[in-house]
Amino acid sequence: MSKELTKRADDYSQWYNELVVKGELADHSAVRGCMVIKPYGYALWENMRDQLDKMFKETGHVNAYFPLFVPKSLFEAEEKNAEGFAKECAIVTHYRLKTDPDNKGKLIVDPEAKLEEELIIRPTSEAIIWNTYKGWIQSYRDLPLLINQWANVVRWEMRTRLFLRTAEFLWQEGHTAHATKEEAVEETVKMLDVYSTFVEEWMAVPVIKGVKTPNERFAGAEDTYCIEALMQDGKALQAGTSHFLGQNFAKAFDVKFSDKNNKLDYVWATSWGVSTRLIGALIMAHSDDEGLILPPRIAPLQVVIVPIYKGEEGKALVDAKATEIMSGLKALGIRVKYDDSDNARPGWKFAEHELKGVPVRIALGMRDLENNVVEIARRDTKEKSTVSLEGLAGHISELLDEIQANIFNRALKFRDENTREANSWEEFIRLLDEKSGFISAHWDGTPETEEKIKQESKATIRCIPLNNKQEDGKCILTGKPSSQRVLFARAY
Amino acid sequence: MSKELTKRADDYSQWYNELVVKGELADHSAVRGCMVIKPYGYALWENMRDQLDKMFKETGHVNAYFPLFVPKSLFEAEEKNAEGFAKECAIVTHYRLKTDPDNKGKLIVDPEAKLEEELIIRPTSEAIIWNTYKGWIQSYRDLPLLINQWANVVRWEMRTRLFLRTAEFLWQEGHTAHATKEEAVEETVKMLDVYSTFVEEWMAVPVIKGVKTPNERFAGAEDTYCIEALMQDGKALQAGTSHFLGQNFAKAFDVKFSDKNNKLDYVWATSWGVSTRLIGALIMAHSDDEGLILPPRIAPLQVVIVPIYKGEEGKALVDAKATEIMSGLKALGIRVKYDDSDNARPGWKFAEHELKGVPVRIALGMRDLENNVVEIARRDTKEKSTVSLEGLAGHISELLDEIQANIFNRALKFRDENTREANSWEEFIRLLDEKSGFISAHWDGTPETEEKIKQESKATIRCIPLNNKQEDGKCILTGKPSSQRVLFARAY
Repeated sequence: MSKELTKRADDYSQWYNELVVKGELADHSAVRGCMVIKPYGYALWENMRDQLDKMFKETGHVNAYFPLFVPKSLFEAEEKNAEGFAKECAIVTHYRLKTDPDNKGKLIVDPEAKLEEELIIRPTSEAIIWNTYKGWIQSYRDLPLLINQWANVVRWEMRTRLFLRTAEFLWQEGHTAHATKEEAVEETVKMLDVYSTFVEEWMAVPVIKGVKTPNERFAGAEDTYCIEALMQDGKALQAGTSHFLGQNFAKAFDVKFSDKNNKLDYVWATSWGVSTRLIGALIMAHSDDEGLILPPRIAPLQVVIVPIYKGEEGKALVDAKATEIMSGLKALGIRVKYDDSDNARPGWKFAEHELKGVPVRIALGMRDLENNVVEIARRDTKEKSTVSLEGLAGHISELLDEIQANIFNRALKFRDENTREANSWEEFIRLLDEKSGFISAHWDGTPETEEKIKQESKATIRCIPLNNKQEDGKCILTGKPSSQRVLFARAY
Repeated sequence: MSKELTKRADDYSQWYNELVVKGELADHSAVRGCMVIKPYGYALWENMRDQLDKMFKETGHVNAYFPLFVPKSLFEAEEKNAEGFAKECAIVTHYRLKTDPDNKGKLIVDPEAKLEEELIIRPTSEAIIWNTYKGWIQSYRDLPLLINQWANVVRWEMRTRLFLRTAEFLWQEGHTAHATKEEAVEETVKMLDVYSTFVEEWMAVPVIKGVKTPNERFAGAEDTYCIEALMQDGKALQAGTSHFLGQNFAKAFDVKFSDKNNKLDYVWATSWGVSTRLIGALIMAHSDDEGLILPPRIAPLQVVIVPIYKGEEGKALVDAKATEIMSGLKALGIRVKYDDSDNARPGWKFAEHELKGVPVRIALGMRDLENNVVEIARRDTKEKSTVSLEGLAGHISELLDEIQANIFNRALKFRDENTREANSWEEFIRLLDEKSGFISAHWDGTPETEEKIKQESKATIRCIPLNNKQEDGKCILTGKPSSQRVLFARAY
């Protein structure tokens, strides 16, 4: 397969699809809408997962594991939640195959092995988890329950794209139980903060924190908080959500606790999740026409060393120096690889590592060695520099920090340049068509207007930003009074 | 729920079931045969997983993720494998629910959303993975492919038990591809060694390495290597398997590679896995009538500190000392908790931590503090000792190593005492009925005899030990000549 990528300017969507596959992050599978996460993509996910897991544990959460299956009777218990996911559920109806009597060597579903009750493959786990919590919670002493789960979930999407929207995806889902509404709301906001810290500081993607409108809420939530990021094509992407679930699930599953005064009340709940979709956001926020650009803090490889030499003797010299450099870098905890494979020329390797977004490349040539220097290329700016071997590891370590900051700042600048105000319907449409981006505009607060705006512009309200400035204005569509601007965009 | 356990001697099976639940490792769920792994059990699994993952990476493997679903046509491609799993498959047939017209608020499977091809929930992933490898392997340069996956799998077992046999369980499955038979066999044995090292050195469970008889092979394998452990009730438990798959899957999915001479050949394969079943083995190998006994290296908590005090002032003194001890222990990487909850007396806490198998308990009392000592109790022997606060952390660190070694040695001694030779059918049956255990005996090498022995004694051939001593003998059942003893046991 050619490593040449479609240019972003020519076809952004095609560029993305090619990059995921050629960058060896993921591949399509034989199962409709399901992806294979390849080793390089999975190593990226592991780094993201490990950091998130650490942050969850630091905020007092523990992991557990709940069943993949939700019996239909539990699934339908919280009606709004059930309604929200009913149309995209994979359903297990049988538990056995048998030999096809008409077709030697083939199998058919055994009609005699039909389940009494169908099992839904979890699209999200509130139902099975709250049914379990019922047995775990009796008194205020059992609260709060701060549990997270790393799992696969299935949502039968009709149009799928690698990482962004797949039938099966990997995610984490936090499910917490609290004695008071205040504590549950506090938890919801705290986890939103964990997400924004992670996405900004580790993935180098700036986000807007906000609250969804009722139309865009998670099915079964009282409030959905979100972080929204802007992609390079001017479309927004919801990068994570944290839901205040009120007492909805406690009521659906009859989960009550006795407080300090022995009064019974329903438990308050939150849930929050991020998924492999984040990898899609990462790719679209930073990468360029040459390939991936990965932030050093989560890049599977931070540094690659490419040797340039002639003959066996030259190789031995370069090998020795590479080993020395590697051990210096590893001592600082830097993830480094020595790419001395003999089946490709240096130029081909350079292109390959650019495609895969390795933040720093060190070219190690014979002449450089004589001068006690190496050539360093950074992936984010493509700048090259000649650097002394003296103090190299320290220099690279600082450079990785600088790259991390630069990628974030570049994305932030892009977002700022692509966040504008619209004060009339004409301006709103013109801005959207010109260059898309976030558009801050007044809205009359009704679901009907929101829906009409969506129909006519394909833009949705991404969120009502937290700590939003209050100002009088008129709805861009209806002209009715409004007290604050909300954030619109076309979105993934 | 009472924390009192059934005694092992009274009902071993009941003791096990109670211990899993009361020790808060896992719980039954609303889904038939599926368990909830509770936070304490999951923390144990995380420690096991992280160590195994490290060992896989150190031996050159990388992780990836493949779909949960296997289309039926792929599932049936390798006939023996398909036949082996066909009778215990969860099958997805539909992808949508709809409102039940006859039952407000209820949902039914939408008959119009029937899948064209049924999807099997992976009971193991050879089929989906080898179908994927077909696209990844062209030349010897693409080999070896050394990939592991951490995932959930589903096998619709009729009789289930927490950890030991559940419809859904967590596991890892390695799937490697090689250019030669020799290399694949070498990989199979290497991974068996990784498993035995892990189970012996981390879980403190001694194992016998061996090869399964053809009858007991993994469906689709040419050879199945295994590690077998002995439980305290004298029954054996298969703790991990590593399969040499020959070219079976490469042929079923047409995966060929061109070698250095441009000659096409089918790829050679291995697969290997361990699962949450290991937790069952861990419990049954070490624990006693008071509760769990966990080896320090994988115990979620290695040390618990219980304060004993009177009054606020006493509490402050003890707290200060506990903080000091904690930081000393943490500096050595020891997992420690200060259990200063005020809703239980020390005696209750002691019993609770014994039940949960915390290797070392430190009781911190007022009088002890005056004497600059603490009382230490080790879970494995229940010995108590008074130890100076001076150098406490170092002492505890050594004690944890000693406990790890003691638990292993105790299990090894038990296994040795319960491994015996039988030289006649009468002796075989008598030994089995007396105290079970491993029985080393001659067998004529035929599947028919093996099956007959199983029918009549309920004992199976656990394995033919690696590097088995060759000796002439006569089959205990048929009297036919045999060249080696094999290992029999009744098994989980």
